Amino acid sequence: MTLLSTLETPCLILDRSRLARNAARMTDRFANSGVQLRPHMKSAKSIDVARIALAGNFGGVTVSTLKEAEYFADHGIEDITYAVSVVPEKMPRIAALIKRGVKLGLITDQLAVAQDLSLRAQAEGVTLDVLIELDSGERRAGLLAGGSAVVDLGRALHELPGLRLTGVLTHAGNSYQCRGLADIQQVAEAERLSAVTAATQLRAAGLPCPVVSVGSTPTATHGLSWEGLTEMRCGVYMFGDVFQSEIGSHGLEDIAVSVLATVIGHRPDMNSALIDAGGLALSKDRSTGAPGLAEDIGFGMIMSEDCRRRIGSVRVGHVYQEHGMLTADGPFPFDQLPIGSRVRVLPNHVCMTAAMYDGYRVVDAGAGPVVDLWSRINGW
Amino acid sequence: MTLLSTLETPCLILDRSRLARNAARMTDRFANSGVQLRPHMKSAKSIDVARIALAGNFGGVTVSTLKEAEYFADHGIEDITYAVSVVPEKMPRIAALIKRGVKLGLITDQLAVAQDLSLRAQAEGVTLDVLIELDSGERRAGLLAGGSAVVDLGRALHELPGLRLTGVLTHAGNSYQCRGLADIQQVAEAERLSAVTAATQLRAAGLPCPVVSVGSTPTATHGLSWEGLTEMRCGVYMFGDVFQSEIGSHGLEDIAVSVLATVIGHRPDMNSALIDAGGLALSKDRSTGAPGLAEDIGFGMIMSEDCRRRIGSVRVGHVYQEHGMLTADGPFPFDQLPIGSRVRVLPNHVCMTAAMYDGYRVVDAGAGPVVDLWSRINGW
Repeated sequence: MTLLSTLETPCLILDRSRLARNAARMTDRFANSGVQLRPHMKSAKSIDVARIALAGNFGGVTVSTLKEAEYFADHGIEDITYAVSVVPEKMPRIAALIKRGVKLGLITDQLAVAQDLSLRAQAEGVTLDVLIELDSGERRAGLLAGGSAVVDLGRALHELPGLRLTGVLTHAGNSYQCRGLADIQQVAEAERLSAVTAATQLRAAGLPCPVVSVGSTPTATHGLSWEGLTEMRCGVYMFGDVFQSEIGSHGLEDIAVSVLATVIGHRPDMNSALIDAGGLALSKDRSTGAPGLAEDIGFGMIMSEDCRRRIGSVRVGHVYQEHGMLTADGPFPFDQLPIGSRVRVLPNHVCMTAAMYDGYRVVDAGAGPVVDLWSRINGW
Repeated sequence: MTLLSTLETPCLILDRSRLARNAARMTDRFANSGVQLRPHMKSAKSIDVARIALAGNFGGVTVSTLKEAEYFADHGIEDITYAVSVVPEKMPRIAALIKRGVKLGLITDQLAVAQDLSLRAQAEGVTLDVLIELDSGERRAGLLAGGSAVVDLGRALHELPGLRLTGVLTHAGNSYQCRGLADIQQVAEAERLSAVTAATQLRAAGLPCPVVSVGSTPTATHGLSWEGLTEMRCGVYMFGDVFQSEIGSHGLEDIAVSVLATVIGHRPDMNSALIDAGGLALSKDRSTGAPGLAEDIGFGMIMSEDCRRRIGSVRVGHVYQEHGMLTADGPFPFDQLPIGSRVRVLPNHVCMTAAMYDGYRVVDAGAGPVVDLWSRINGW
């Protein structure tokens, strides 16, 4: 049995009871909604986490890389949506996944891509399930619902050999800019309307649209209507982070992933201290990118070693490659953070922080012990 | 033989000829200076890169993690400085390194740490080489040269059993905030004076100070005097990045590491395009943290596939987890960046970008082919 106190720092800790609670809450939310929950595994990248997220759901997942798709297929998941704009150059790995029996959903917003995919699908002897990607306000990728391009692309996907028009898909990533419940509800409704509008257009044109898919953690948590939708994709809800808690997706006590770190220096002359978790241990995703939040916690919030209590107002105000510089409002609580003592850092953005590690040290709750090691599938 | 055009994207490319040129330039700079170059391997984390950086030098390296120290020791490097504030809790791995014959330099700025290290060194039956860490203006860790704490700590390190006072060490990380040659020269001189002042204090008190160590890429590149120094530690010069080129450490044509990416979408309505290299492929270390630079290149500069020519003014203006959003001044050059085409992204901050990968695809120059795969030692 490994005690938390014997782990080398920095390392990544996953609180299994918080994870299970977060997963169950989202599963329950969609249990009788008519909408299938297809958890996005891009934050967790772990089959062990996926099994918890999939409990009570239909079994399909969302991924952000083909490496994730291959990994989850290796672990028996057979229904996977690869929710990043596909390019025909990635066809060999896609065809290999389909040939081994995976029901693989692809997305595009480009007619030229559809035409190229059709040629390559025929050459490979496979049929590709393709969803039309919509931009419901994020301004990243996707067509605008209501425009003629939706039907043009839908018709191409329906008629071109080797392709199957599977539906429409959007992601309200702009919900991350929301500040307040009403704001999130409005973005959730725009997300829903985008998908439903495009589905209606396709069906009015005599085209099929079996899947009407939306998803982001804030909109999944606070949306008021799922009318016309068939599928919800969200992911960060499993772990949570300080950013999500500040925009109201969950409480601080729900955050399931943290970085265990050691205090390595005191700077009384600067009212600060140093920990051995810097930019490589926490990522450089800093909260100041999010104006209007309750508190700027920099790169992370400093908790007690059992992760149950915040240490004053202490946060990671600045990071160097291997140093995190702690700051606080008012006098720094040096007595609570002696050199050599350990803290848990709640990450600002867990997807980026978790990606700095090969795996999770799993605890049942609080201060441990470590009950398992779960690996992650990083890379591409 | 692997052609660049057959690599899955995103992936990390290392141009060996640029690396060799950068390494030789720094080695030559210190060849007859009386100062030993101890390359910092925290950016590269690779024995293959270390061998090139060590050519013509004395053979010692600097590292930022004990995992790097163990890895380089495994590959035959016997003189290693671990240049992050040591805490006694890391003693077991430190003692193991020393017992296998590594000459391991440690750093501290804390009297209490010295006392604790002494007890643990005696318990382990080893003698620790410890340098006093100085703060020459970075305001991170370290004592201020000239203060009485330097001599107090020096005396403790000299007299406590199990410890050996080895010298003084500082890092002018504040040189990264410099804008202009004169500014860097001033910081380099402050770095030198800090180390030399502390060494003089120690010697005046009858204490030894064999090592007088400084180092950062900007100050190593532009410093005017090394008088009184014995050692230079710098690391990012091997690879270079857009940030270092903008503060004048090298030219854009010297940048040896880039990310190969594929164009996956066009957004004419937003005058932008998307690549499959986002925050996980580039890191979230963005150039806006550096006010006063010539150009805000966001998360990276977009070059042709052979990395020899910039594509207009195109840069990665924004990143999502797996999407990089390209922006440009004026009309976006869609015709030069068709969907499915490939680009090389010069990173804003190479230490963070390289850390997102397990290894390097090595090319001799330009468009390849890939001549080798070099692994990296990430983690702790």
